Amino acid sequence: MDAKHILFFEELLGKENVYSDKAHLIAYSYDATRTRFEPDAVLFPRNEEDISRILVYCNAHHISITPRGAGSGFTGGALPVQGGIILALEKHMNKILEIDMENMVAVVQPGVINMDLQKAAEAVGLFYPPDPASESYSTLGGNVSENAGGMRAAKYGITKDYVMALRAVRPNGDIIRAGKRTIKDVAGYNIAGILIASEGTLAVLSEITLKLLPKPKFTKGYMGIFPSVEDAMNAVFKSLAAGANPVAMEFLDSLVVAALKKKLGVVLPEDAGALLIGDVDGNVSEEVEFQLKILEESFRANGAQDFVIAADAAQRDKLWYARRNASPSITIYGSKKLNEDISVPRSKLPEALSRIYAIGEKYGFKVPCFGHAGDGNIHVNVMVDGSNPKELEQGHHAIEEIFELVVEMGGTLSGEHGIGTSKAPFMSIAFNPLELQLFKDIKKAFDPNNILNPGKMGLPE
Amino acid sequence: MDAKHILFFEELLGKENVYSDKAHLIAYSYDATRTRFEPDAVLFPRNEEDISRILVYCNAHHISITPRGAGSGFTGGALPVQGGIILALEKHMNKILEIDMENMVAVVQPGVINMDLQKAAEAVGLFYPPDPASESYSTLGGNVSENAGGMRAAKYGITKDYVMALRAVRPNGDIIRAGKRTIKDVAGYNIAGILIASEGTLAVLSEITLKLLPKPKFTKGYMGIFPSVEDAMNAVFKSLAAGANPVAMEFLDSLVVAALKKKLGVVLPEDAGALLIGDVDGNVSEEVEFQLKILEESFRANGAQDFVIAADAAQRDKLWYARRNASPSITIYGSKKLNEDISVPRSKLPEALSRIYAIGEKYGFKVPCFGHAGDGNIHVNVMVDGSNPKELEQGHHAIEEIFELVVEMGGTLSGEHGIGTSKAPFMSIAFNPLELQLFKDIKKAFDPNNILNPGKMGLPE
Repeated sequence: MDAKHILFFEELLGKENVYSDKAHLIAYSYDATRTRFEPDAVLFPRNEEDISRILVYCNAHHISITPRGAGSGFTGGALPVQGGIILALEKHMNKILEIDMENMVAVVQPGVINMDLQKAAEAVGLFYPPDPASESYSTLGGNVSENAGGMRAAKYGITKDYVMALRAVRPNGDIIRAGKRTIKDVAGYNIAGILIASEGTLAVLSEITLKLLPKPKFTKGYMGIFPSVEDAMNAVFKSLAAGANPVAMEFLDSLVVAALKKKLGVVLPEDAGALLIGDVDGNVSEEVEFQLKILEESFRANGAQDFVIAADAAQRDKLWYARRNASPSITIYGSKKLNEDISVPRSKLPEALSRIYAIGEKYGFKVPCFGHAGDGNIHVNVMVDGSNPKELEQGHHAIEEIFELVVEMGGTLSGEHGIGTSKAPFMSIAFNPLELQLFKDIKKAFDPNNILNPGKMGLPE
Repeated sequence: MDAKHILFFEELLGKENVYSDKAHLIAYSYDATRTRFEPDAVLFPRNEEDISRILVYCNAHHISITPRGAGSGFTGGALPVQGGIILALEKHMNKILEIDMENMVAVVQPGVINMDLQKAAEAVGLFYPPDPASESYSTLGGNVSENAGGMRAAKYGITKDYVMALRAVRPNGDIIRAGKRTIKDVAGYNIAGILIASEGTLAVLSEITLKLLPKPKFTKGYMGIFPSVEDAMNAVFKSLAAGANPVAMEFLDSLVVAALKKKLGVVLPEDAGALLIGDVDGNVSEEVEFQLKILEESFRANGAQDFVIAADAAQRDKLWYARRNASPSITIYGSKKLNEDISVPRSKLPEALSRIYAIGEKYGFKVPCFGHAGDGNIHVNVMVDGSNPKELEQGHHAIEEIFELVVEMGGTLSGEHGIGTSKAPFMSIAFNPLELQLFKDIKKAFDPNNILNPGKMGLPE
């Protein structure tokens, strides 16, 4: 990058808010995909006005900008694949500006960590439900940009269901307000709606207004033990169709169960072909019991060998320990996991899983699966030897077959991780050229010079 | 319109699906605003392919197209203000294509009447919550295009919270699919999100996939009686912040109460300065009792003189009879009502109402108010003598002042009716030129020739 650009940024932001030394460029070159792309500079805007000025300058000079929160994304959204600027929002723009208890609304800057908002809300008896697995370190700006999900989506929905309003900066520097602190608002186009999940390609978020809920008073955990994945998957959609509304309904298959036992010594039922683990909640204990009753009846009617209720916090923690350690445990099946988060209509889960395992068998890979069965979103892990290029290539072929299958079944390439760079090659499986063209037209309306997070989401160049 | 265009449409659709005679053009010239604009022709597409072909032709010939469902909108969204084609979707494209009980999803054509879906869902134990006052005649295509709300929004949200996927036709004829029958989907831009509430200006909806819920088993009605509007408005946000989650919390002010007694002989409490009427529901009766208890405590702590529980269906019907007849009753205050559906953050309701009444007094108009207080959305009615042009003009000035007040308080021009033509002059109160420019850029990305519902939403030409 031309030294004059660095000088401009240093003058604008102060030297302490501009990094262009090698060590820092490396530090900001990767995300959770572990792929690396070095930026030319890392900028730390102090406020919305800084963001606007940076964008005006970069737009005039056609300098690429990649907004970045914690860099914890799984699909490369925060990677500067075409170099240019990393716009790092975690240093200064990380304040909870307001918890409005009267309207049950939080106003935050994009660099606030998800869990910090959850804690601030709970401290005043309120509740921010979206809880991606990265909740302890991912930022709300990243959560909105990727439309993050989480465990509680089955009952409480995902990030987009909580975004009431956004402030954002267009690539031309225009500061726009979208949405209101009101439940209903139908004036003008739903700009907030299109910015959510746009992966930083349309505008840079500068402020986020989120809906909060009253915190339910009672919660219990449960675990259903099934002889087979098919039984468990039938139980998922049949219990929900019977009226169950669990906070979470998480799935572990038999490979995951075996890995948890072997690697971490977790005590789990003998011969469990699959587990469903989750929570139910309510304002009254009778609602909790009502939910547990539907779940137990539906689970048993669909082959469950046992149904365990975690009556106290310690028992509940034990159940969740198994779920939370699913991902680290499965490395016993291969040094590298090709991890995809497909989502299908829930009634298609039994067929989808059985066909995914068949693809794994064809290629000779173990494919442990776990995840958010209650909302149809499953983490599929094709386990390969990362040091073997041939096996890696075969693994990618298996992934491609899985994507084709999922789309054929009415599902989506990504339930919650986004497209970024890692799923970009598969966009043409899910979208036809007319649909990709529409994405391109929208991108152009916001960002005619293609400076914002270029090379992402498989947008046609 | 050139006769060759009519011939083309007759060949495409059959003569029976093309109206160009005066009687029919008049029949399709108005909506619930009672303003009239005659189209040049009315077309009844039989399917998505017809829509696509009509759009391709109109795009090539720069013919304006106004999509229309039931024509029951309050803001002129279905009025062909620049002539051209009315694309009437209620005749052929009015089928419920599927109720998928396993995934709790309905797939409908845009011309399906809201209540027909509600009934079809309830017949199988499911529930479609959005219930605009027009539910018996408005179409789901219109509901999505205006992002319709309703009574149950306080607990269950609005139309956008139920749209899982859309099929739509762009002005160039491209048929696009947006969204999936899955809870989570973050692949590609949220096209469904931007089409909702776009008032038919971006694309023509051809198929709608909606989320359904399990039907709650218990419901009770309630009424809180307050000495003043201020007390009632305080009770609204304080009860909700205390954890109440009522299905509905509807408000009637003292002018509405007096009108109901005088015009319809409704028996209502003496000296009621304001009423809050609503329902609570739950899967277990204890949840219903829990909700009623919070409401009663909060209402009484905020000055309620009485709290009435409607234990059976007959009593509940009586409460709702008063609410449902609020709108027809208030004509005793003036032959024409200038009806606006403003929305503010709920904690601002007390101040907003008191300032709205002050504006009414200044101009010498009665301003009866009622509506969906539980979600902050109030129907404000400036009552004028419709035969007196001077008074009408003054009424419009009062409305403008009300909008300025609402926007200043963080509210919106429209909670659920949309902008259309009737609120278009006020868009510059709510949006700055940069935001209006963004709307225009988006419009252009979808519809470069401005053929789809031109002249709406206050978009810059």
